[in-house]
Amino acid sequence: MSVVPKALEELIEALGQLPGVGPRSAERYAYFLLKTSRSKSDRLAQALLKLHDGVKKCPVTYALIDAKDEVSPLYDDNSRDKTTVALVADPFDIIALEKTSLFRGTYHVLGGLISPIDGIGPEQLHIPELKKRVKKDKVQEIILATNASVEGETTAMYIQQELAALKIKVTRLAQGLPIGVDLEYADQITLGRALERRQNVGE
Amino acid sequence: MSVVPKALEELIEALGQLPGVGPRSAERYAYFLLKTSRSKSDRLAQALLKLHDGVKKCPVTYALIDAKDEVSPLYDDNSRDKTTVALVADPFDIIALEKTSLFRGTYHVLGGLISPIDGIGPEQLHIPELKKRVKKDKVQEIILATNASVEGETTAMYIQQELAALKIKVTRLAQGLPIGVDLEYADQITLGRALERRQNVGE
Repeated sequence: MSVVPKALEELIEALGQLPGVGPRSAERYAYFLLKTSRSKSDRLAQALLKLHDGVKKCPVTYALIDAKDEVSPLYDDNSRDKTTVALVADPFDIIALEKTSLFRGTYHVLGGLISPIDGIGPEQLHIPELKKRVKKDKVQEIILATNASVEGETTAMYIQQELAALKIKVTRLAQGLPIGVDLEYADQITLGRALERRQNVGE
Repeated sequence: MSVVPKALEELIEALGQLPGVGPRSAERYAYFLLKTSRSKSDRLAQALLKLHDGVKKCPVTYALIDAKDEVSPLYDDNSRDKTTVALVADPFDIIALEKTSLFRGTYHVLGGLISPIDGIGPEQLHIPELKKRVKKDKVQEIILATNASVEGETTAMYIQQELAALKIKVTRLAQGLPIGVDLEYADQITLGRALERRQNVGE
């Protein structure tokens, strides 16, 4: 005999599919949606139903865009510099970089990082499309803005080699101490990297 | 100009309503639902749409039950002892107690805990219905199975007084050291309680 009503159990199971959501969190979310007004669960249901039809990938930058748009508004925007391209792994990395308000170039989404363990090779990433953009938009600088992880480093190195023949400037996001962190709490690898890549600040 | 497509933004907002889900988690869930097959998001949407119609409260125990059931199957089950009632704050507390497989009585859900700060007074809890059950089912023992928190204690004490006139056995879940915890890591209050309520094991 089940202790949980079927409709509730189905919702708990469906919520439990989300990344990092265990059975206890799924129960808590489901109970919250049941206790609060029906409008909250309906709103979430409608948003879910509209999701896949409302979003598509930009055919140039592979960013996520409104289904009604042709290309990414960030790419379409004439005030953005098309000759500087930040290369990111996932569409959400664009949001993180946009929040800095410091980048006026355009983006290119790889669609993942090289990770043999997950079966992702370079042929699954949008690298040919990047090369096409380099020629079409006369790209002068590509900023490798991948994670500072093993996969991020591997992908950055691979792409650096792939782009070598194009003879354009290739840069990488700086690695070092995060702002506001005490030296003694920084991990060894970060601190080692900060030491290796120490920056010249005075004579 | 929005960096995130509208359909995705709406989903992130709707997911952000869930308790303890911040904007970053909501983004991660939404992106996961977009990346994986449409069937996952549709399954979640359907579960949400069916939630409120598929679940109701048992009119006797106030547990959550299938809309098609009349009373809680746990209450309806003749092998369960109706004269022993575990009093819990929320329907999900029943699941926790059922997992122990040690309780053969029935449940009564209060529907919350007394908490003046949240505007919850005793009149909002299913206490009159409990008293009715005591008479109808000839209840012999009520186990106060509320949280070991301030609200849980307050509610337990209030109900203890309310039930005093009925002259039935009222018990409370034991408080003390949780199993597997080192003495030195136990908090002071728990350790103090364990000392006060020390159990006789010899003689």
